[in-house]
Amino acid sequence: MSLKQLFRQPMLRAMLGRQHIQALRSMTTQSDKVLVDLDPKTGVAVVQMNRPPVNSLNLEFLSDINNTLDKLHNDKSCRGLILTSSNNKVFCAGLDIMEMYQPQTDRLTEFWKTLQNVWMNLYGSRLATIAAINGHSPAGGCLLATCCDYRIMVQNFTIGLNETQLGIIPPFWFVDSMEGVVGYRQTELACQKGLMMTTDQASKIGLVDEVVTPEVVLQKAQNEMVSWLKIPDYARQLTKSQMKMPNINKLRARRDEDVQHFVNFITKDSVQQALGFYIENLKKKAKK
Amino acid sequence: MSLKQLFRQPMLRAMLGRQHIQALRSMTTQSDKVLVDLDPKTGVAVVQMNRPPVNSLNLEFLSDINNTLDKLHNDKSCRGLILTSSNNKVFCAGLDIMEMYQPQTDRLTEFWKTLQNVWMNLYGSRLATIAAINGHSPAGGCLLATCCDYRIMVQNFTIGLNETQLGIIPPFWFVDSMEGVVGYRQTELACQKGLMMTTDQASKIGLVDEVVTPEVVLQKAQNEMVSWLKIPDYARQLTKSQMKMPNINKLRARRDEDVQHFVNFITKDSVQQALGFYIENLKKKAKK
Amino acid sequence: MSLKQLFRQPMLRAMLGRQHIQALRSMTTQSDKVLVDLDPKTGVAVVQMNRPPVNSLNLEFLSDINNTLDKLHNDKSCRGLILTSSNNKVFCAGLDIMEMYQPQTDRLTEFWKTLQNVWMNLYGSRLATIAAINGHSPAGGCLLATCCDYRIMVQNFTIGLNETQLGIIPPFWFVDSMEGVVGYRQTELACQKGLMMTTDQASKIGLVDEVVTPEVVLQKAQNEMVSWLKIPDYARQLTKSQMKMPNINKLRARRDEDVQHFVNFITKDSVQQALGFYIENLKKKAKK
Repeated sequence: MSLKQLFRQPMLRAMLGRQHIQALRSMTTQSDKVLVDLDPKTGVAVVQMNRPPVNSLNLEFLSDINNTLDKLHNDKSCRGLILTSSNNKVFCAGLDIMEMYQPQTDRLTEFWKTLQNVWMNLYGSRLATIAAINGHSPAGGCLLATCCDYRIMVQNFTIGLNETQLGIIPPFWFVDSMEGVVGYRQTELACQKGLMMTTDQASKIGLVDEVVTPEVVLQKAQNEMVSWLKIPDYARQLTKSQMKMPNINKLRARRDEDVQHFVNFITKDSVQQALGFYIENLKKKAKK
Repeated sequence: MSLKQLFRQPMLRAMLGRQHIQALRSMTTQSDKVLVDLDPKTGVAVVQMNRPPVNSLNLEFLSDINNTLDKLHNDKSCRGLILTSSNNKVFCAGLDIMEMYQPQTDRLTEFWKTLQNVWMNLYGSRLATIAAINGHSPAGGCLLATCCDYRIMVQNFTIGLNETQLGIIPPFWFVDSMEGVVGYRQTELACQKGLMMTTDQASKIGLVDEVVTPEVVLQKAQNEMVSWLKIPDYARQLTKSQMKMPNINKLRARRDEDVQHFVNFITKDSVQQALGFYIENLKKKAKK
Repeated sequence: MSLKQLFRQPMLRAMLGRQHIQALRSMTTQSDKVLVDLDPKTGVAVVQMNRPPVNSLNLEFLSDINNTLDKLHNDKSCRGLILTSSNNKVFCAGLDIMEMYQPQTDRLTEFWKTLQNVWMNLYGSRLATIAAINGHSPAGGCLLATCCDYRIMVQNFTIGLNETQLGIIPPFWFVDSMEGVVGYRQTELACQKGLMMTTDQASKIGLVDEVVTPEVVLQKAQNEMVSWLKIPDYARQLTKSQMKMPNINKLRARRDEDVQHFVNFITKDSVQQALGFYIENLKKKAKK
């Protein structure tokens, strides 16, 4: 869906109102892959991931997300962020597999560093962050969701860190992110088996906080945000930071090592073969 | 309620029996703010916080609590402690806000150090400790409850670390204390939003172990204590200590830093203004 | 039950098939205390503990278990391990108390080091590990179960780290093992009070993943194993290792200290008296 198409959506127009669309226009000049609607009255930014077809995270898209986060963090009027997708079937399909298949080392390195930045920026955001998960959310999509302070998910979709099913490994900070939400045991089960959970399964173990119908997901996110913004920002931020910093510092301390580890792992023949096999399967499915 | 009034309570007299009242008289000579009834037969001390109107924790009251803990720890006949309130509406209202509003640095420092001592003493107590939470239990009240080995709460009251609602921050050891009871995710939610939970909500996430009617709370606590005291003391203590020491050592290592951090934070203009505003509101409510 | 008796069991014969019994014969030449049936088609080894009457863990039995683990780890055809008991009343009764009562220091030291090895080997196993808990599982039996990736338990039995009830202490790695399964709070309660939980209680807190009837426990374990082995081994192993290594490294770093601590504690007069008292009670019960 293009920005133009987006503007034509009557529901969205009604929801955003004229002035927000202005803000959206100006904020999105740099990228139409990340649509930002910052409400000046509430200080809440709705950020839509908009990289068709399935919001898969490649280097440029990750950079766009990161730039958006930086801008919002530097905008004193912004207090809360709702992360969602312009695609009502897929929240985010995770890392773009084409970044990992037959990669150039320089770009692969840059890709991973940018993902680390997005994670640190979102996980440690000074904003109250709510994921309005309005579609499937595998792997990196699940990672983005677990970075937020609260998760509302539309029924009948799936979510999970399913890396092992593709023959790759969720990095320790993916795992830490999920563990902070559902605890060690459920994380261990989910990550080893690469579980893609239904919304109900995810709700049962606490991976999502609420399950809703597609029509109300954004409104529910806005309602929930109100309760978070009742707390004075500095008190909420310091309390959040106190709990999030250990994991952020853990990645900071091992950052280069983590990049090296990823590059070495992905460029292994066996992993390249597994990815190739996976891509071949995707192509076959697409043809059917 | 004075000690005299307390003795007049028929239920309490019946419950305590004559000899316990003797013990209570002698042990409370130093302070009528902390009423101690140590049953020589069972080794169980019932400790009532008794600083009207709402057991708010000021420097002197904290010192009294600490002295009581020291005495009981040094008394070889004492094996268990039930912490409760002489006030059947409020277990403990938390830190006395007057200690933090327009404070003198010396007293503020002493106040915080004493609170640290109470926490380390109660959280790491060699006794089996049960909180009989017979009234509201916000902030520091919730902290005292989470220091205990088991929590029984009377229905229709509220409990939580609601610091952020007042524009202050729960220190890391408050957070660690709650996390040990309800896990990381529920702690994160509760502390960021400053949630005051109903007894049912608290029970659902495991913040309290049992919900009971006011008439039976002490008896339930006594019953539960029996099961803890079936275990040989040294085995229970070493097992407890093994699990509690990491958090205690964490505070010990950062003790001075934590005091400095607290003093700096509380004496900020913005925080003083928030507290002033809060006190003004309390006064207005009181006049109504 | 002897190996001979085992072979006579029609259900087992049918289940194992002829070729497995061959494998079992050859793998068990060293020890009839640990019966191994490795299915060459699936790569799944069913390991039966078989030290009558109750699979209590003495030095030789622990060595046998450890050797079995080493062999299976070195056998490239082996991908999964189902740990169960040849006794349909007791999974494993825990440490053999006779190793701790009036011990020789050399043997006591060797005993503890071997237990550490079994724990590290099973907890960090490259195999997918499932405990088919077909009987009571106190103390060290519970430890073996919590080392596995998944636990299926037969109804109407009990499980728990009940060390404190005998006046001894669950070592930190026993506690870490349980905490990884049920979290800090339930571990704290269970270990301090030495709780032996019914299958239902264990299921409620997540100490076991499934509760089944005795007839189906092995089949359920085989079914569950199928879902674990769908994941490429190296991806599952690296993901597992990432989550298990911190606890393994913790024991590795404190290994000698832990041995010393155990030897000092067990050889205390008070602990020897408690054990003597316990053994005396067992003998009295046996005579009745």
